[in-house]
Amino acid sequence: MSRKLINEIISLTGQEVRIMGWVSRRRDHGKLVFLDLRDRSGKIQVVVIPDHKKAYETAKKIRSEFVVEIKGLVKERPEGSKQKEVDVMGIEIEAEEIKIISSYEGDLPVDISKEELDINLETSLNYRAFVLRNEKISSIFKVYAEILKAYAETMRAEGFLEIKTPKILSAATEGGANFFKIKYFDRYAYLAQSPQFYKQAGVGIFERVFEIGTVFRAEPHFTTRHVNEYVSLDAEMGFIENFEDIMKQLEKTMASIFHSVKENCSAELKKYGAEVPEVNNIPRFKLTEALAILEKEFGKKSQEVDIDPEGERLICQWVKKNYDSDLVFLTHYPAAIRPFYTMPSQDPQYTESFDLLFRGVEIATGGQRIHDYNQLFKSVKKHGLNPEDFKHYLDTFRYGMPPHGGWGLGSERIAQKILGLKSVKEAILFPRDVKRITP
Amino acid sequence: MSRKLINEIISLTGQEVRIMGWVSRRRDHGKLVFLDLRDRSGKIQVVVIPDHKKAYETAKKIRSEFVVEIKGLVKERPEGSKQKEVDVMGIEIEAEEIKIISSYEGDLPVDISKEELDINLETSLNYRAFVLRNEKISSIFKVYAEILKAYAETMRAEGFLEIKTPKILSAATEGGANFFKIKYFDRYAYLAQSPQFYKQAGVGIFERVFEIGTVFRAEPHFTTRHVNEYVSLDAEMGFIENFEDIMKQLEKTMASIFHSVKENCSAELKKYGAEVPEVNNIPRFKLTEALAILEKEFGKKSQEVDIDPEGERLICQWVKKNYDSDLVFLTHYPAAIRPFYTMPSQDPQYTESFDLLFRGVEIATGGQRIHDYNQLFKSVKKHGLNPEDFKHYLDTFRYGMPPHGGWGLGSERIAQKILGLKSVKEAILFPRDVKRITP
Repeated sequence: MSRKLINEIISLTGQEVRIMGWVSRRRDHGKLVFLDLRDRSGKIQVVVIPDHKKAYETAKKIRSEFVVEIKGLVKERPEGSKQKEVDVMGIEIEAEEIKIISSYEGDLPVDISKEELDINLETSLNYRAFVLRNEKISSIFKVYAEILKAYAETMRAEGFLEIKTPKILSAATEGGANFFKIKYFDRYAYLAQSPQFYKQAGVGIFERVFEIGTVFRAEPHFTTRHVNEYVSLDAEMGFIENFEDIMKQLEKTMASIFHSVKENCSAELKKYGAEVPEVNNIPRFKLTEALAILEKEFGKKSQEVDIDPEGERLICQWVKKNYDSDLVFLTHYPAAIRPFYTMPSQDPQYTESFDLLFRGVEIATGGQRIHDYNQLFKSVKKHGLNPEDFKHYLDTFRYGMPPHGGWGLGSERIAQKILGLKSVKEAILFPRDVKRITP
Repeated sequence: MSRKLINEIISLTGQEVRIMGWVSRRRDHGKLVFLDLRDRSGKIQVVVIPDHKKAYETAKKIRSEFVVEIKGLVKERPEGSKQKEVDVMGIEIEAEEIKIISSYEGDLPVDISKEELDINLETSLNYRAFVLRNEKISSIFKVYAEILKAYAETMRAEGFLEIKTPKILSAATEGGANFFKIKYFDRYAYLAQSPQFYKQAGVGIFERVFEIGTVFRAEPHFTTRHVNEYVSLDAEMGFIENFEDIMKQLEKTMASIFHSVKENCSAELKKYGAEVPEVNNIPRFKLTEALAILEKEFGKKSQEVDIDPEGERLICQWVKKNYDSDLVFLTHYPAAIRPFYTMPSQDPQYTESFDLLFRGVEIATGGQRIHDYNQLFKSVKKHGLNPEDFKHYLDTFRYGMPPHGGWGLGSERIAQKILGLKSVKEAILFPRDVKRITP
């Protein structure tokens, strides 16, 4: 008899089935033993009665998280016996044979059978592989997988080609710090902070490209928003009229991701009481306008033309109240705080660039890039960088490049903010931060 | 007038359109100027006649790889004028306005307008971003993107959840060499050779997981088969009966990838004269049987129970001849040459493991893993490793793990072997090898 998944047996009342999975909990009621059995498709109640003597004896030995195989009969559940937490369409299994596939000795580190775990993030991360079995926590990663899928599908539908670009670089480019250095045979190399240069090269070849890939940031911050390794959803598109084209495409992409999550993750969203935003016409404010609003509405003054995390939270709050939007574009960041390849605005103090904020946190950064070789060469120098270090990058722009731009979008922050998780680390299976590279 | 893609104007004969792209070549014939214009959707011939004086003067300045915008009339092409290489459904554009969007001075490094470039791999990689514009070369990456897409879709359809696992590790695990070391703040860390440990943890949470991710191998070999960074298509599945289940799933996955490529990349396959194999019942041979065949059929003796690259080529040749299959599974590799986590066979000299070979080269490695904590602990020690170094990994197996296994599949080698490329580096946009980390 081949194994059935729990969600396959709903229509099999009266039939013998063979199921396998983890025992979430054993409950003894009088003479009866109840097992809540969990597999990748769902959870079901198994009843073991003393009449099936061998099965019954085995059941008495079972503890939470044992892996078991059960043969038994699919039955309607008696009305009164229904438990809220194991309510699979009113059916249960009466066990006839039980086999323990995997057991353990000693105590479990955490009781993961509860719906809400009352452990802090540190404990959750210390016992990560185990804690992730908790159904509420594991459901985060079903939403996360949906985001990855929806992103790729949307970008393909819009004519973007999926590419994979190198993560090992010869130089700490973009002129920034925050690069991890690696020993590469008899020399040194660096881990990519973003696929920036390679996705721009992609425009010269394919016009429109996207990448889903790991990026590495040696940022020393220990916050709920920072991790040192994350999965960036990148895109770059050629033949744009202006950077509004990029924002329009990103808006479309976000709408599509949200739509897919809403459509396909209703059970997971319910666990978090999460509402997925509708996206249409995300408001756009110049950064200077946003700073003026912060000063006027919240008495928050900035020393320089830039916005800090508190400012991002407050402006989102204000936009939500006044525009009923969970997302907002801030545009025209000063040239001084954007990389050298950013296209300057008509007033060259500012740039044709944007950040996208979602529920108080920046989830994407993007903008138009300089596509003219000579202009780019000058911009490298103007930023105090050495064109020699950027030879390969500059060469990309030597022979005919169209106006273009794109974005980098943080996949984990989308999941975090959809579900209302306190830390982005909760949306990563095994997060890496300045203090943690285990498990 | 909004831009049209070249493949959108086929049905627009008699209409005015605006198109943009790269000029693959300019050809002057008597008084006429012909431009072969290329965008992401295709290529078309543009005719410029002296009557449109301004456009004609601009056209006379255009050189290969200029980026241009053209307004003009879609016309049927006169029968006699058809050029083999720019034959888009018998239509052409008569230009009325031409704008040069991006130009250059000096010479192009390589003439990429030819169908076949007569440059060696080193030159191709030195001018990579530019050479990739060649249509035959860029088409490799349309096949590659199709492989990525087909893999994800197949795995999802089979109930595998997409995961992303860390690439920065605290220890050079798997007990092997070939790890890149990185400076991680005030300590050292290592780049992941594979998602092995984390995808196994994924089985404990989700039963079935897959990952598409970059892996890093500090292998000092400079060959047509090795790169130091590649994209691995990983999978891991729980509740298997034996490792035949894994091979069956991989066989299904390969069949699905090949089917998608055949279906959706016919133009690209044609450029390479490539045939996509049919997959049904991939032959399986024990490694020892394969070695015996090599000795009998080719007089090739092995010093030890292992197969070298020449042996892999020859056994594929023999299988093709005798079984008409482009793929072959070799199974039951000796325990001595497999990692400590590999499930031993009944004869513990051998393991429940396999390699999948495709047209002479290994594309996947997989097998069943040890899922019992105590057995795994002993295997760590037996392999001369320190269980302390594997604490976090071992902990994954402490509390109920089902029998499981999986594979790692090289994405680039699939593309290479489908298209018959000499080196795997040709199937990577910007490859990294022991000598090269630029561009």
